[in-house]
Parts: sequence; C-alpha cells; structure tokens
Amino acid sequence: MVYLTRVEHFNAAHRLHNPDWSAEQNDAVFGKCANANWHGHNFELFVTIKGQPDPQTGFIFDAKKLSAIVRERIVDKVDHRNLNLDVPFMQGKLCSIENFVIAIWKELEPALPAQVSLHCLKLIETPRIYVEYYGE
Amino acid sequence: MVYLTRVEHFNAAHRLHNPDWSAEQNDAVFGKCANANWHGHNFELFVTIKGQPDPQTGFIFDAKKLSAIVRERIVDKVDHRNLNLDVPFMQGKLCSIENFVIAIWKELEPALPAQVSLHCLKLIETPRIYVEYYGE
Amino acid sequence: MVYLTRVEHFNAAHRLHNPDWSAEQNDAVFGKCANANWHGHNFELFVTIKGQPDPQTGFIFDAKKLSAIVRERIVDKVDHRNLNLDVPFMQGKLCSIENFVIAIWKELEPALPAQVSLHCLKLIETPRIYVEYYGE
Amino acid sequence: MVYLTRVEHFNAAHRLHNPDWSAEQNDAVFGKCANANWHGHNFELFVTIKGQPDPQTGFIFDAKKLSAIVRERIVDKVDHRNLNLDVPFMQGKLCSIENFVIAIWKELEPALPAQVSLHCLKLIETPRIYVEYYGE
Amino acid sequence: MVYLTRVEHFNAAHRLHNPDWSAEQNDAVFGKCANANWHGHNFELFVTIKGQPDPQTGFIFDAKKLSAIVRERIVDKVDHRNLNLDVPFMQGKLCSIENFVIAIWKELEPALPAQVSLHCLKLIETPRIYVEYYGE
Amino acid sequence: MVYLTRVEHFNAAHRLHNPDWSAEQNDAVFGKCANANWHGHNFELFVTIKGQPDPQTGFIFDAKKLSAIVRERIVDKVDHRNLNLDVPFMQGKLCSIENFVIAIWKELEPALPAQVSLHCLKLIETPRIYVEYYGE
Repeated sequence: MVYLTRVEHFNAAHRLHNPDWSAEQNDAVFGKCANANWHGHNFELFVTIKGQPDPQTGFIFDAKKLSAIVRERIVDKVDHRNLNLDVPFMQGKLCSIENFVIAIWKELEPALPAQVSLHCLKLIETPRIYVEYYGE
Repeated sequence: MVYLTRVEHFNAAHRLHNPDWSAEQNDAVFGKCANANWHGHNFELFVTIKGQPDPQTGFIFDAKKLSAIVRERIVDKVDHRNLNLDVPFMQGKLCSIENFVIAIWKELEPALPAQVSLHCLKLIETPRIYVEYYGE
Repeated sequence: MVYLTRVEHFNAAHRLHNPDWSAEQNDAVFGKCANANWHGHNFELFVTIKGQPDPQTGFIFDAKKLSAIVRERIVDKVDHRNLNLDVPFMQGKLCSIENFVIAIWKELEPALPAQVSLHCLKLIETPRIYVEYYGE
Repeated sequence: MVYLTRVEHFNAAHRLHNPDWSAEQNDAVFGKCANANWHGHNFELFVTIKGQPDPQTGFIFDAKKLSAIVRERIVDKVDHRNLNLDVPFMQGKLCSIENFVIAIWKELEPALPAQVSLHCLKLIETPRIYVEYYGE
Repeated sequence: MVYLTRVEHFNAAHRLHNPDWSAEQNDAVFGKCANANWHGHNFELFVTIKGQPDPQTGFIFDAKKLSAIVRERIVDKVDHRNLNLDVPFMQGKLCSIENFVIAIWKELEPALPAQVSLHCLKLIETPRIYVEYYGE
Repeated sequence: MVYLTRVEHFNAAHRLHNPDWSAEQNDAVFGKCANANWHGHNFELFVTIKGQPDPQTGFIFDAKKLSAIVRERIVDKVDHRNLNLDVPFMQGKLCSIENFVIAIWKELEPALPAQVSLHCLKLIETPRIYVEYYGE
C-alpha cells in the first residue's frame, strides 16, 4: 500500500458567523474572524489517496488525473469565491476549516476511482493553522 | 550600510473592480478576481530598512520596534479586513497589489525614525505572485 | 474526528551532555553538539489536537486559545532560554529533542480542555531533523 | 516511542516507460513524463524511524549516523544519476515514485540497527506531488 | 515604478559537458554533474518586470498574461525535456544555469509588451543554488 | 554579468550584551535577547557572487568550490558554536546580526578568486528577521 499526495492551491474569502447569535456574541466568540465585510486566505489542499501500484504503470493512480478530479470537484467551486455565499456545498454550515474539510471530503470521496481510497485531506489556512481529516 | 528586513503576516479579502466600468467589462479584464462576493489571501509583507549599526547596540534599528511600527500602522488596519471596504488608506483606489504596496509605503515611511530609511517593501499575494516597491 | 494543528516558534540554546561521562566521552558521542559554550536553534513546535467540531462554532477548539495555552505553558518558558539551564521541566534530563518533546507533552497535555485530546507533537530542530511524539 | 525524521536531498533524471508498450501507448499513458530524452527532479527523502530514547544519550538513534546510512545506501547510488539506467535496485522496474519509494525501503530497512525500526519513507518529487510508504 | 514577479515551475534533465574535452577532463571539472546518462532538477523561474500601474486596472501588467507569455515562450519548451538535447535555444551552449538564464532572457524579453520592461530573472536549480540575471 | 547564490546552513548560540552597560540596561534595551545563559538560532547564509560565465565551463565560479570556501572560512568556525565566546572574528564586537554579517564579509571576501566579486551576503536569523550587506 502506497500513499500518494497531490497538493492544490486556491484562495477565497470567508467569515465565521453563527446566524443564531447576535453580532456582539459573534464578535465575542470569533473576534476579527467575524468581520462583517469578510476576510480571506490562500488555502493549500493536500489530497492523500492510497492503493497498490499498477504493474503496467507503476501508479496507484495518475497524479495528473487526481489533480483534474480535485480541480473539477473542489478548486473550480471555491477558488476566488466567498465560501459562505458562493459555494453550494457550504450552504447552511458554519464556515470553520473543520467544517470545510469535512465538506470537501464528502464532495471528493465519491469522485475517486475504485482502485484507490481517499486516506486524508489536509487543509492549510495560514502558515500557522491547518486541519486534517480521515473521513470519520 | 546594512539592510534589515522584518516580515509580517496578515490576511484579508479584496476584489479587483473599476467602478467606471460595467460588470461585463470588469469580468472581461479581471476575470474571477472581480467576483462580486470577494476573495482573499494570506499576505506576507517584507519591510526592508537600511542604516548604519549603532555602536552601542549593534542594531540599525531594533527589529522588535520595527515590528511594532508595522503592526500599528499597517497590520492592525488590514488584518482580517476587506481591503476595498474597511481600509481608509485604500479608499477610492483600485485594489491591485501594485496600488496596495504604494499605499502601504505612504503610511509606513513617515512613521520610521530618522536614523534609518525605508528601502523596499515586498508584498506576497500568492505563492506565485508578489510585488516590490522602492518608493519611486 | 478532525485534527487541528497550531504551529508555534521559539529559539533557544542547548547542548548535548551526559554528566556521568568525561568530556572526551561526551565529545566522542555527541561531537560538536557537546560544545561547552552551547549552540542553539530556531524550533518550530506543531501541536495537533483532535475532537468533534462544536455545532455552535464549527471549532473543535479555538486555535487562538490553543495558541495562548501553548505560549503560556511552553513558549514563554523556553523562548530565548538555555534549555539545559533555564527550563524547570528539563532539569536533570539529557537535552535531546527526543527527551524535550516528551517533556513538552507532559507540560501541555494536562492544560488542554476536556473536549479535545492531544494527538501529536512535532518538533523541528533543523531544516533536516525533527521528532514526533504521540504520548506513548 | 518517539519518531525521528532525517531529510536527505538528491537530484536525478528518469522517465516513465513501459517496455511492453509502443511509443504511442507510452505517450498516451505517461504524456510528457515518457519523453525519450528523460526529464528530472530535485527529490527530498524523509526517513522516519521509531524507538525508545536511550537513557545514556537521549537519542533513539544518532541523526548523524542515520544520515550516514541513508547516504551510503541510497543517496550515493541515486544522486546525479539516471534512475532508469544507473541505479541497480531500479533495474527492470517501472520508474514511478511509487515503485521507487518501495525499492528504497528494501535497500534501507536491512541497514538500520536493531534498536530502531523504519516507520515511514516520504519522497517528494515536485512541490505538488509526493508519496509515503510504511513497508506494507 | 513597481516590480511584479511571477514564479513558474518546470522540471528537466541536463548534464554539464564540454564537447571539446575528453570524458576524463569533463569528469575532473564537472564531477557527477557530467554523468553521461544525465541528471535533473525541479526548476523555479522568477520573472520580474517593472512599470507604472495603469490607472484603469491598477496593474503594471496582468500577472495571468505574464504567466501565459512565460509558459508559451519558456516553460512549454523546457518542461519535462532534456535541456541539452530537446531545447532549440540551448543548442551549442554549455548547459550551466548561468548560460541557461541568459538564454531564457533572450527568448522572453522580446515577447513582453512595451509598457513594461524585464528587470530580473531568478532561476533556482536546487534548494541551495540559484542564479540571477539583469540582462547585461 | 550573472549573479550566483549559494546557501549554507549553521546553528549557533549567542546573546546581545553591551559590556559597558549594567545588567538592567542590557535587559531594558535587548529584552530576552540579553539572557545571560544565551539563546540560539538556525542561521541560513546566502552568499551571492557576480561575474562572467567562463566559455569553457559555463560557470562564473563552480558552486561546489564556492561552498567549500564558505564552509572553510565561515561555517566551520561558527557552526554549533557560541558566537560571543568561540568565534575569533566576533571578539570584542556586539553580537547583532548586523555586526555579524559585516564580520562574515571581511572573512569571506579576501578568500574569493579574482574572476568573481562578492556581491551580497544575506543572513536569516529567524523566519521573520534577516539582514543583507553589500560591502559598504
């Protein structure tokens, strides 16, 4: 079993905001991340799949095809967008990176071919903060 | 003459938008950077000053004090903000990184002490795009 | 279960030295790392916690609060210090990064709130050497 | 149990090529990676071992000795070489990074001392593609 | 005057070889860089242009268009290629990074639009070696 | 004229301390950098030379030979040392990075061969602080 990771980049705006709370409560909990006019990040998404190398190609899966799937399913929907307003799969969700990485998993996992399985998503939000998710 | 660089980090939302143009014209020129709901970045700001080392301290200027000035004058005004809507010194300007780095220079240069001069600002917008400005 | 990592930076002096050995034996085993006048490093500490996102905040734990705990419990005690001489929780221990990361775990783990658990500490000593510890 | 990682660098030429296929079939599957005149990479190899810190040294294993083993067994055989033509342990294998990392494991694992075990190899091929292998 | 830098990535095989010398002489001067079966690198090319921001766009030049020019003129001709054998603009030249960066300048400079000028090319060959060229 | 940069790594202990001042004055000016028991850093030294490519080699100067000179003249004298106590060329100097980079220039410049000249030294002390020196 070999693990293959492909890294993709996108940038987006978002804010942390609980619609059930007052503005004061949002500010108290989320601080400047609750800014009504949004803020944003350069995100790096690490997609790790696992599988057996194919004897004909040496690949567990072609990294270029993996990139194409991640771009079609995720990057094209979030790059240069507002995660709270523009991204269908984040509607109705609190836009933390924890919830975002789980939502990305749900979008991406069904799109992968049968010979590999999605092992881990790592999502870097700032040079000092990132999350990882293993699907459960 | 020694050059000292201090790096500061912030993240912000912005969009590229010329108010004299139609939405179609903005889209044609700026593409997804014109997204009406904003996008954002992790910015890295490199502030380079030059001067002679002080015989008493070995410093051209204390890097901690330089950091405090950059934070007070720049980072506190732009971090987790919308550059188009929330930042007084960007009002009425097209929010490109070229215009942004020039505007930062104008805010920062008068705040530096007489014994050093501001040499260069480098502003990284994405891992593949940055600008530099030398004040003229 | 989502894993959240916060990265903190500090720099410190240390040396590798076994007090039960002669200077020659220390030199033979530890080489230039045994230098009597110390050497030092910029350390990067990656603190990874795991937990369930809170439905009210989307957080498994606020990364800013995690940073504050790591700074209070660890960074403030080791930054710009001599690990052998100045750090209470390293007293009587051979100051390798293996022993250091275990000692950091013991200081940090009890300070975390009940809703999360400490998953991994990663401590980078040089661009080419790092350790990881999972608590057992 | 502590995990210690040492990073080594090398650069090499290679190509992806299945000798059972026509040139057209190789081009169709491997694209520009099949270029008959080769291409190349700067590789970063992360070698992670695990073990208990020795009470006398604080080390699970001396990182300098680990580096020496990796250089002798791997780096000296692949650095500034053609992986397809010059490397004995890649002969007869399709030269993907998946097959390469498995072959490195087989070369390196028997050379490690009994007090540690090889935990993981991570091999970075480009800034956006890497593989990991845990020995099974 | 603002300086804008766009970074592009490619990887390629090459060797250092002076055809006027014997194999022994090539080995003596170039060492393992003369390997007859080639070696290779991941290259990073930093293209820095300078100009005045356009009042209508805030750009000195659209970074996406700059990227397209660099890809068409340079990256498409060198990526996954053998610099000695496959690249027309390196024919008959000793394939050092010094000669390579000068040759890239000659290919790229005429392709830039009149409103900007090419300021600097920086070409990273390994994490520890790079060259810069300013056109004269 | 081409500029060639070679990067070297070392780590060392130091402190900021003016012997003409009281401990209180040193603390007031240098803060935790004055810690009597030292602190330390991983330093990265970027050595940039300039010259014309030699028609026989394509080199302005062999990067391996440049590395050997920098290691012999600088790295071997400072790596795993105490800059204040162990380094002859820092004796009697306030150990700031400004003074350190000037002292490195004086050691290194006379050791370079006539066909190149030393253009710039860049010394990174932390991920957020570095100095550059051009010899005057």
